[in-house]
Amino acid sequence: MKTSLFSYPTPFTPPTTEEDELSFLRLARSRRVGATTFHRLLTEHGSAQAALDALPDVARAAGATGYSACPRSVAEAEWAAGHRAGARLLLPGTAHYPEDLLQFPDAPPLLWALGDPVLLNRPRIALVGARNASSLGLRMARKLAEELGKEGFTVVSGLARGIDAAAHEAALPTGTIAVTAGGIDVIYPQENKGLAEKIAKMGLRLSELPPGVEPQARHFPQRNRIIAALSRATLVVEAAARSGSLLTARMALDYGREVMAVPGHPMDARASGCNMLIRDGATLIRGAEDVLEALGAPPETIKPVKSKTAPHGPAPAPAAPASPPQTAPKTSLRNRLLALLGPAPTPEDAVIRDLGTDAATLSRELLALEMEGTVTRHPGGMVSRG
Amino acid sequence: MKTSLFSYPTPFTPPTTEEDELSFLRLARSRRVGATTFHRLLTEHGSAQAALDALPDVARAAGATGYSACPRSVAEAEWAAGHRAGARLLLPGTAHYPEDLLQFPDAPPLLWALGDPVLLNRPRIALVGARNASSLGLRMARKLAEELGKEGFTVVSGLARGIDAAAHEAALPTGTIAVTAGGIDVIYPQENKGLAEKIAKMGLRLSELPPGVEPQARHFPQRNRIIAALSRATLVVEAAARSGSLLTARMALDYGREVMAVPGHPMDARASGCNMLIRDGATLIRGAEDVLEALGAPPETIKPVKSKTAPHGPAPAPAAPASPPQTAPKTSLRNRLLALLGPAPTPEDAVIRDLGTDAATLSRELLALEMEGTVTRHPGGMVSRG
Repeated sequence: MKTSLFSYPTPFTPPTTEEDELSFLRLARSRRVGATTFHRLLTEHGSAQAALDALPDVARAAGATGYSACPRSVAEAEWAAGHRAGARLLLPGTAHYPEDLLQFPDAPPLLWALGDPVLLNRPRIALVGARNASSLGLRMARKLAEELGKEGFTVVSGLARGIDAAAHEAALPTGTIAVTAGGIDVIYPQENKGLAEKIAKMGLRLSELPPGVEPQARHFPQRNRIIAALSRATLVVEAAARSGSLLTARMALDYGREVMAVPGHPMDARASGCNMLIRDGATLIRGAEDVLEALGAPPETIKPVKSKTAPHGPAPAPAAPASPPQTAPKTSLRNRLLALLGPAPTPEDAVIRDLGTDAATLSRELLALEMEGTVTRHPGGMVSRG
Repeated sequence: MKTSLFSYPTPFTPPTTEEDELSFLRLARSRRVGATTFHRLLTEHGSAQAALDALPDVARAAGATGYSACPRSVAEAEWAAGHRAGARLLLPGTAHYPEDLLQFPDAPPLLWALGDPVLLNRPRIALVGARNASSLGLRMARKLAEELGKEGFTVVSGLARGIDAAAHEAALPTGTIAVTAGGIDVIYPQENKGLAEKIAKMGLRLSELPPGVEPQARHFPQRNRIIAALSRATLVVEAAARSGSLLTARMALDYGREVMAVPGHPMDARASGCNMLIRDGATLIRGAEDVLEALGAPPETIKPVKSKTAPHGPAPAPAAPASPPQTAPKTSLRNRLLALLGPAPTPEDAVIRDLGTDAATLSRELLALEMEGTVTRHPGGMVSRG
């Protein structure tokens, strides 16, 4: 099973030297060379260097004048920045690049990897969901991630707020992969900085973009495609209609991967995306057993997760940060608190943890909301909306 | 479409006189003549009277000695009791007996009907669910019954506590059928007496048992089979695993009818039956639109529901009550209250209505439960469990 380039239609020379890696980087970063074109050029020309040599002619034949490939200096700078960040480059044909990605024509030409790439060798499942998840949703995400992790699955997600973060956190002891929308050394959202650092130590972070790139809106769907392609199944834990998680699920469907969803009551708006997926044929998931029933238990035994092996020095700040992320604006504690609460009473402890705040701050905020009648405190340290 | 005996394999003489009805009653009430045997004898012998004449020979051939059919006097007593109760007898081959029942070999040989049999002429949908439903479940049942009623469906259910009662109540203005497990003149549970009377006036009650029979445990599955057979689809609104509603759904499946269910969060035990059905292939229902999408809107226009036409005098108490019902014991207000509440806050008004109690009584009970920490009161007159 571990023959490389298993799915590549024609063999090419896998990169073995730093020089080869630079050629891959140059080809991947050349203008107009998207993921699909990258793979086509590589197989047509047999190696990245040969493809680079042919690029000007290819461009001329396509009517583009004055075309030149990505300069070697740019590739060198990216190579250096990645290694300064402690990351390594995973390229098609090398040991840790997941060969099952190569069945998709738009597989990432390269992945910067920070952490333990051995996690890629285990069966992977994506757990994704709403950023403004309810505490019930967060609890479900944690439970599923923990149980699937114990069963030997690597839990893949997007390091977003809410469901993603809860799934990563719960899967840290068993193994988790965060695919990020910015460069490997760029952490977004900032509130997940601590989690991102833990994942680099105990799990694995992946990015297909050059180090230093700040995430832009258009990067998120591209990142979602990698999550979907990496995972045997994409499980949506809580999602409203028209949410990003549904796009990931749709990509999983396009890729012929399993799609699964946790149902909810139709009168709960945060269940609407999941209920819609189930109506469209996604497997209804009540717990980890349902996932195992659909996928079968992973064949491999669980390997202990090692911390990353060969960091190339500490990771200083990267080169040139691009424009700021164009996603959700910072939200106030009040709004984040309200987003966490649903009609079902939730332990205040859980809310404190989910918010990353302290009891006194939460208490002040709750008091104000309670006076308004927006939030209710219950005996036993529970709190709910409504 | 209204040709009678549409599904009967061989024609027989439909009953037209009181004498014919008595023969049907005698045949149906004869020992060892179950529903399936009844239909076989009827088609083999061409009429109920001919089947009765042949019964002793049939019994002898089967090795039963000293067999005699149900005495005429017993049939006469049932006939009189039914009519005293204001009911009419629906027999296969007569105007209001639903011909689509006859595709099932165990279709009821007869139905006592109290109310407006015209409701049988419209497309029927069963709404069933938990007796100890949550207020969220009751709200969903009411909403579905009301909306499907407005779309021209007759709402069929079993007059049980909880979801059944809520569905009947909400469908009263548009048309509802209660299939009961006891005789047509026996109301069970007693708390639904008022509702049962309203259904006899504005809707229709059906029973296949002789008047005066108190419901026994074994009658409930028999009754459920009629609900399933009568309905184009059986929609389960809220049901725990291993509940009676699931048996009705299973019968609907056996009969080749559609099964539908309202999902819920996996951490809510009252959703487990429904989630299980959806995993097994039932259609996930978020609202009336989903039902209409699955079934198509009913072809007929909505006829105004008439109150019953020709009652044969008021309904006095029936003849001989049998043993008391062997179903759920009476529960205390406290338990009924707890059963109504879930993690989602519910308006106290709704709880008062669902319990059929008054504000002062509820308030006393809530106070005690709140002190224990079992229940929480929320601003805006809301209350929840937990």
